Amino acid sequence: MPHTYEFPRPALTVDIVVFALDEQDLQVMLIERDLEPFEGQWALPGGFVRVEETLDEAARRELQEETGLKEIFLEQLYTFGAVDRDPRERVVTVAYYALVNLEGHDVRASTDARNAAWFSVNDLPDLAFDHQTILAAAHDRLRSKVRYQPIGFELLPEKFTLRQLQHLYEVILDRELDKRNFRKKVLGMEIVKATNEIEKDVAHRAARLYRFDKRKYDRLTKRGFNFEI
Amino acid sequence: MPHTYEFPRPALTVDIVVFALDEQDLQVMLIERDLEPFEGQWALPGGFVRVEETLDEAARRELQEETGLKEIFLEQLYTFGAVDRDPRERVVTVAYYALVNLEGHDVRASTDARNAAWFSVNDLPDLAFDHQTILAAAHDRLRSKVRYQPIGFELLPEKFTLRQLQHLYEVILDRELDKRNFRKKVLGMEIVKATNEIEKDVAHRAARLYRFDKRKYDRLTKRGFNFEI
Repeated sequence: MPHTYEFPRPALTVDIVVFALDEQDLQVMLIERDLEPFEGQWALPGGFVRVEETLDEAARRELQEETGLKEIFLEQLYTFGAVDRDPRERVVTVAYYALVNLEGHDVRASTDARNAAWFSVNDLPDLAFDHQTILAAAHDRLRSKVRYQPIGFELLPEKFTLRQLQHLYEVILDRELDKRNFRKKVLGMEIVKATNEIEKDVAHRAARLYRFDKRKYDRLTKRGFNFEI
Repeated sequence: MPHTYEFPRPALTVDIVVFALDEQDLQVMLIERDLEPFEGQWALPGGFVRVEETLDEAARRELQEETGLKEIFLEQLYTFGAVDRDPRERVVTVAYYALVNLEGHDVRASTDARNAAWFSVNDLPDLAFDHQTILAAAHDRLRSKVRYQPIGFELLPEKFTLRQLQHLYEVILDRELDKRNFRKKVLGMEIVKATNEIEKDVAHRAARLYRFDKRKYDRLTKRGFNFEI
């Protein structure tokens, strides 16, 4: 059933940059394309927006269909509209970024007959379309946003050690942080609170577990919070 | 000449929130609609994206056609895709915000037979579509962005007094600032530098004119600049 309009229309898609954290690096999920153009190359998960769904719904649907991920932190990033970004026709894409805690989610490595895999942001394959640009923009957003919003906590388990929290900031900001200063800053801002629990099943001395204090954080942001580290 | 596609496509538009500053308030430019739906109501300037132009080009073209404004600061804000935001059909709009210095630009009050006018953000008429939501999002972005990027300077003449700069922050943040603290903070960060000139044609004692120091600012932002006032 064809659909006809008076003026030509760009196709509209969503693409999602999904970040996760492992012991070493910031990871991003990619899908191996099984269709031309860019067949066999890696790309961001994504697809066409349906006329009966919102942009957020399209992003969540595509993410679940292609990676099995659902109910994760998802935020609109930017809309990319270069005229020649798709060799077939004009396609405008609304890019999202998502943050996922690997401990809490079952990430399928493959779904609809396509291969899905995690890659370190420091060791990426060639990407299809302008997905390298989109990924770089998402990384930039994450890097600047952790400074004034505690979105990084989405990448951690609900309870975490201060070592894990420091690792998160080091990986996102891509530089080493001084352990003493970092702890002083974090505990001084009181945006995390200690639990009575300690780590389990670790080879080193078990450290105390903390959790994020959303109420305290909300109060701080009203005054203009800045997590300068 | 109709255009036919296998699947239905949303229409794609751009809408632009243009901010300016007068002696009292933050101002926004609106257009009176001369077509249904919302005929006779005020709306943001904007229109359909052509398949041969980028989103930024569409925004600049519509802005010039409808308001006469060109070569001003323009940045993508967010893409709005609620399913029922246009009563005629599915329309997704890429919203932009623009900042204009009223002294430097010739703003036509009317262009293609439609009425265009400035309104105070504190005294807005009912707006067409979801334009109230878009405007509020643009205002939020401006309010939070002046804290960590000096985009507010786009609203000022090239040379300005510290009184004008304080007025800008007071209007955007919607609260009074202490004059002494404000000056101490601004001069302490050295993001403005004094010129040898003073105000002309003013009734009160002429104040020194300053200009924005972009080089100094760029150095500061690399370390994580935050203009907390």
